[in-house]
Amino acid sequence: MSKKKQEYVAHITSQEEDFSQWYTDVILKADLVDYSPVKGFMVIKPYGYAIWENIQRELDDRFKATGHKNAYFPLLIPESLLAKEEEHVEGFAPEVAWVTHGGDEKLAERLVVRPTSETIICSMYSKWIQSYRDLPLLYNQWCNVVRWEKSTRPFLRTSEFLWQEGHTAHATQEEAQEETLRMLEVYREFAYNVLAMPVVTGQKTEKEKFAGALSTYTIEALMQDGKALQAGTSHNLAQHFAKVFDIQYLDRDGQLKYVWQTSWGVSTRLIGGIIMVHGDERGLVLPPKVAPIQVVIVPIAMHKEGVLDKAKEIYNILADAGIRVELDDRDTQSPGWKFNEWELKGVPVRLEIGPRDMEKNQVVLVRRDNMEKTFAAISGLEETTLGIIEEVQKGLLDKAIKMRDERTTSAKDMATFKEGVNRGFVKAMWCGSRECEDAIKDETGATTRCIPFDEEQIDDKCICCGEKAKHMVYFAKAY
Amino acid sequence: MSKKKQEYVAHITSQEEDFSQWYTDVILKADLVDYSPVKGFMVIKPYGYAIWENIQRELDDRFKATGHKNAYFPLLIPESLLAKEEEHVEGFAPEVAWVTHGGDEKLAERLVVRPTSETIICSMYSKWIQSYRDLPLLYNQWCNVVRWEKSTRPFLRTSEFLWQEGHTAHATQEEAQEETLRMLEVYREFAYNVLAMPVVTGQKTEKEKFAGALSTYTIEALMQDGKALQAGTSHNLAQHFAKVFDIQYLDRDGQLKYVWQTSWGVSTRLIGGIIMVHGDERGLVLPPKVAPIQVVIVPIAMHKEGVLDKAKEIYNILADAGIRVELDDRDTQSPGWKFNEWELKGVPVRLEIGPRDMEKNQVVLVRRDNMEKTFAAISGLEETTLGIIEEVQKGLLDKAIKMRDERTTSAKDMATFKEGVNRGFVKAMWCGSRECEDAIKDETGATTRCIPFDEEQIDDKCICCGEKAKHMVYFAKAY
Repeated sequence: MSKKKQEYVAHITSQEEDFSQWYTDVILKADLVDYSPVKGFMVIKPYGYAIWENIQRELDDRFKATGHKNAYFPLLIPESLLAKEEEHVEGFAPEVAWVTHGGDEKLAERLVVRPTSETIICSMYSKWIQSYRDLPLLYNQWCNVVRWEKSTRPFLRTSEFLWQEGHTAHATQEEAQEETLRMLEVYREFAYNVLAMPVVTGQKTEKEKFAGALSTYTIEALMQDGKALQAGTSHNLAQHFAKVFDIQYLDRDGQLKYVWQTSWGVSTRLIGGIIMVHGDERGLVLPPKVAPIQVVIVPIAMHKEGVLDKAKEIYNILADAGIRVELDDRDTQSPGWKFNEWELKGVPVRLEIGPRDMEKNQVVLVRRDNMEKTFAAISGLEETTLGIIEEVQKGLLDKAIKMRDERTTSAKDMATFKEGVNRGFVKAMWCGSRECEDAIKDETGATTRCIPFDEEQIDDKCICCGEKAKHMVYFAKAY
Repeated sequence: MSKKKQEYVAHITSQEEDFSQWYTDVILKADLVDYSPVKGFMVIKPYGYAIWENIQRELDDRFKATGHKNAYFPLLIPESLLAKEEEHVEGFAPEVAWVTHGGDEKLAERLVVRPTSETIICSMYSKWIQSYRDLPLLYNQWCNVVRWEKSTRPFLRTSEFLWQEGHTAHATQEEAQEETLRMLEVYREFAYNVLAMPVVTGQKTEKEKFAGALSTYTIEALMQDGKALQAGTSHNLAQHFAKVFDIQYLDRDGQLKYVWQTSWGVSTRLIGGIIMVHGDERGLVLPPKVAPIQVVIVPIAMHKEGVLDKAKEIYNILADAGIRVELDDRDTQSPGWKFNEWELKGVPVRLEIGPRDMEKNQVVLVRRDNMEKTFAAISGLEETTLGIIEEVQKGLLDKAIKMRDERTTSAKDMATFKEGVNRGFVKAMWCGSRECEDAIKDETGATTRCIPFDEEQIDDKCICCGEKAKHMVYFAKAY
């Protein structure tokens, strides 16, 4: 390691030493985010926001391919609307921001800044849905929401965040359940193939489900510190909201019936997940599919004749191939310094070009994920580079699967369980009672993350009370 | 006009009879928007939101091509920050929504829901900008803002709207002025070439400028009822915010200097403009570049063998050519009913295909802007259709230029002026005093829209007071 690199990287706390401080160092130094003058609210800087734009594009395509359309609903929701669904208001009222005045006037009714939009959307659906011909209604909204949080961390838990929330209405219970699982699958596939994040999927327990839902499904990702991150949820709302908002349709049989609904969302929290799944001691490691810059070109001995021209030529070749490429032609920094900076910023591939490479009509490609070096001929460079980008994407997923699997254990007793949840997911049996769920949390700090679709039979009795087991659950300490 | 059409179109008030009611009828019946349970807040329905998505894509490409990057800043701004720039707080405080409580707790300091983000952004810039190397800083934000309006109309003036706000910082006064005008030109070119909206550009008077700016530039569009719509603004903020937020940089010469700033924005208001510039008695007319659906295929005698298959084949041909196309294969509605509905929704081109067309290997294309009919061979259909789409785009701009020019007059006396502002823009001379500006407004209802870059010499004295004229101004009644 060169002296320059040491100086530079020295600013990042080691993951092993203090993972939490490493996270903070990385998000600030990689210029993803900054703290704002409003407690608990973050500023998403251009490099962080560009990741979100890529996430949006990938997800939006998938939503539209599954028949959904985007719409936009008001930011502010009257208190009386929020209060209509009992479980919902209980869940959200303690964490909303209240608007009490407009200009100089006190409002007749307080408004909440949306913490989620079920209530305002349902109030519109009850007007829009009249007949079975209006169903299914498949809408999505990209927006900001506010949830007043006491303890916040950029991306992971902030008082305001950006997200999408899908809200659908269906004629039958079966269709609503299908939609709930369809969107969970969209999230799962997206997490694997775009974020290289091998999530575990399954159902939330009663305690952990969304306030107002019949059932909540989740994608759960495992971070490198062994903690889980709930990365996306899909809710079957049944007729809970339809009944209180009176969303009825006239069916083919001439009967008025309540619709069946779903809602589902992911947020900027995903960016926190990407960082903690893939990052390393050098900083960020970004999956190519969401990386704002996929390839950075660093010219070597830039002052030498022809180097910069060649670098620009290569820039054009790669940009024309649809690669998100940047040429770092700053003359204020040395190549070594630049290497470190772009490693910190997680750019998947570095391309070096200098006088000696030019003689051989080649460039050097360095993968960020494993630091592997390849010499590549300039002729055919776009294919070689696209191939390496794809390999990085795949390499990250493989590595993350390995990490997840190594950190996933089974437990039949609490001693093993406690050891396991210090490292990652623990699969264990549960009787289904809230008492045991609470007791396990109190004793170990771990919560039920989900009941997977394929439950293994780890044991026949509950790990906590020893009574007959009902479910296999993924437990973990969680963000 | 068939009976069906009469029945259908009968629901839309005639433009001549009541333009304002026509507007309301169109936006509701074309399914662009709906009223929400929160007074002054609208719901943007999928068909309306898709127009906004197209606007966003076109503008975002232009912002990025001119070197800007997107970021995201907090929704809520502390009262003390808003209050820092004197003119700014005076302008905005009367129309902001106040957040006073978070969860159950009263906040130590009230927060405003952003009406615009200069203050919160400047508070960050003062931290981020240290050296001349950090300049220019060229950021943009896509977001929602809230301005508490007493009297609202969907798209034109609502208490919440969606927009983009660019915020830049520069080393010199000249660069800031260049940026201000560069972005005005981006807006002008976009209005002409994408929205087919021939805007007039120029500078706002002191009275009409942005609260806190040194100078404001504007694009002003003329509606078919003769009223003007401020469609976008670009502000030179000089050092007004830099000084109160202490945004200084160390220049090459070793001196600490305040930055020079700009901000610029357009909003969902543009959609209101599109409607009122292009719409007609049949309803919406959308410029192809922002139309959610550019071509709608309506099969004739759909039950006849092969028709629907042929329609699907054509759908695939057009979709593959990158055209936004929809096949209306509903069997619950007649072709005539569908024609009317798609005309109401402003789809630029209708494609009809029936058994007789199939025999001749042709289709019928009908332009929405002038209802012109073309028979087009199925072979080579994608080129023909793309050509017609382009013609509609051009036709709309030509028509709108004609309309604007016919409605633009010059006046040397108040009688002519009053007549003119009932029809559209009036070019007239002004002494530059606030008194005359106010008097003209009181007497005629018209406001100064802008001082154009090329001022014609209509007269040598002010139309109001008769004193020496300083500027030629575009006057109009405005939304």
